Amino acid sequence: MLSKNQVKFIRSLKKKKFRQANQLFLAEGIKVVEELFSSSFQLHKIYCTITYQNPLKITDLHIITEKELGMISDFTNPNQVIAIFEIPVQKEPQHKGLTIALDGINDPGNLGTIIRLCDWFGVTQLICSENTVDCFNPKVVQASMGSLTRVAISYVDLADYLSKESRVIYGTFLNGENIYKTKREANSVIVLGNEANGISDSIKALVQKKITIPQFGEQQQTESLNVATATAIFLSEFRR
Amino acid sequence: MLSKNQVKFIRSLKKKKFRQANQLFLAEGIKVVEELFSSSFQLHKIYCTITYQNPLKITDLHIITEKELGMISDFTNPNQVIAIFEIPVQKEPQHKGLTIALDGINDPGNLGTIIRLCDWFGVTQLICSENTVDCFNPKVVQASMGSLTRVAISYVDLADYLSKESRVIYGTFLNGENIYKTKREANSVIVLGNEANGISDSIKALVQKKITIPQFGEQQQTESLNVATATAIFLSEFRR
Repeated sequence: MLSKNQVKFIRSLKKKKFRQANQLFLAEGIKVVEELFSSSFQLHKIYCTITYQNPLKITDLHIITEKELGMISDFTNPNQVIAIFEIPVQKEPQHKGLTIALDGINDPGNLGTIIRLCDWFGVTQLICSENTVDCFNPKVVQASMGSLTRVAISYVDLADYLSKESRVIYGTFLNGENIYKTKREANSVIVLGNEANGISDSIKALVQKKITIPQFGEQQQTESLNVATATAIFLSEFRR
Repeated sequence: MLSKNQVKFIRSLKKKKFRQANQLFLAEGIKVVEELFSSSFQLHKIYCTITYQNPLKITDLHIITEKELGMISDFTNPNQVIAIFEIPVQKEPQHKGLTIALDGINDPGNLGTIIRLCDWFGVTQLICSENTVDCFNPKVVQASMGSLTRVAISYVDLADYLSKESRVIYGTFLNGENIYKTKREANSVIVLGNEANGISDSIKALVQKKITIPQFGEQQQTESLNVATATAIFLSEFRR
């Protein structure tokens, strides 16, 4: 049974302001909740319907009705469980290995996909500019499919972070060097920019090497690639 | 001014059944509508607000109010124009070049992204199984960003199409040959499967070479890559 105030509180965590004030975030659906529970993330509260089988023997389950679940869920078809986890303390950003740096990514689905890609390609650190969408946004948590637990994500003053960098800083542009022909340093930073405007001027000034995925075929009228699919190709090229 | 019946008709085109009955589909937003208008696609009707600047001098504009636009739009912030185009006659599927074949892709965003990727990588033909989401679904039209006009998309009996194939048929699996080490034939078919279940058994039997994007790093717990990001990496590898 959920009180009006509980519903209000849970729903408030869909907003960044309330997530930050409480240092808590929402995760939804069996798969994501169980992946977070099995990681170092700290569970704060878990709500589930009576049908939830609880294979991980999570204690302190709060049983709610389907209707209550619907009231707090973001899904069209809510999937048995919603949990609140503590936002972990942000790790000190490192300057080693291969790092992805995001300059103003807006779309939660794109950020979630990029987190999943980092996890797949063994990139353990993702640096985000302060104006990048919050990684604890429920849509990001959803799209990252548990990879959130395996990639350290830091929100920083990106210009400041990059200005202290000794590794090569690559930036992805439409008019850079052909990625397939560029020397790719294993220890480096790859900067990707905002969906509509690309990399901002202040960050552009810090990029040492502009790189591009060339277009193929006769027509070459595609305006650009989506930033998440571009990240997939860049990570594949740097790791292959 | 829109009549109730017009609103009802336009909104009906969000459903595949009505698109097929009328052989018409919806496109929304300045960029997509203008790209479709500039292509071989035939415009059926165009609705816009008085603010639309009409740089392409499209004739027969139907001026509607912001409120009316909101009633027929799928967008949170409708963008001046909605148009109805004719569904083009499906081209006879070819057996040449590099072809992407989709086996039961469900998500409109994924299909739209894959169409855009085909366009970028000069893949002029996309073959879809009959149970793949309709490419004239408004969300696909949106996500494809005009690439719909440059990639020939055919819905076919995929098993039948593949059984007549003389090119190499690659299939993407989690346990195939490492894509970076596999010989990649320029003239071939790459089959990608459904988001949840992968390639179906009947199609699996027709695949000649299973290929995989290897996972990197120490943890290797990522369950899988999203099918659109996987397509990005496979196309990049086949074209580089």
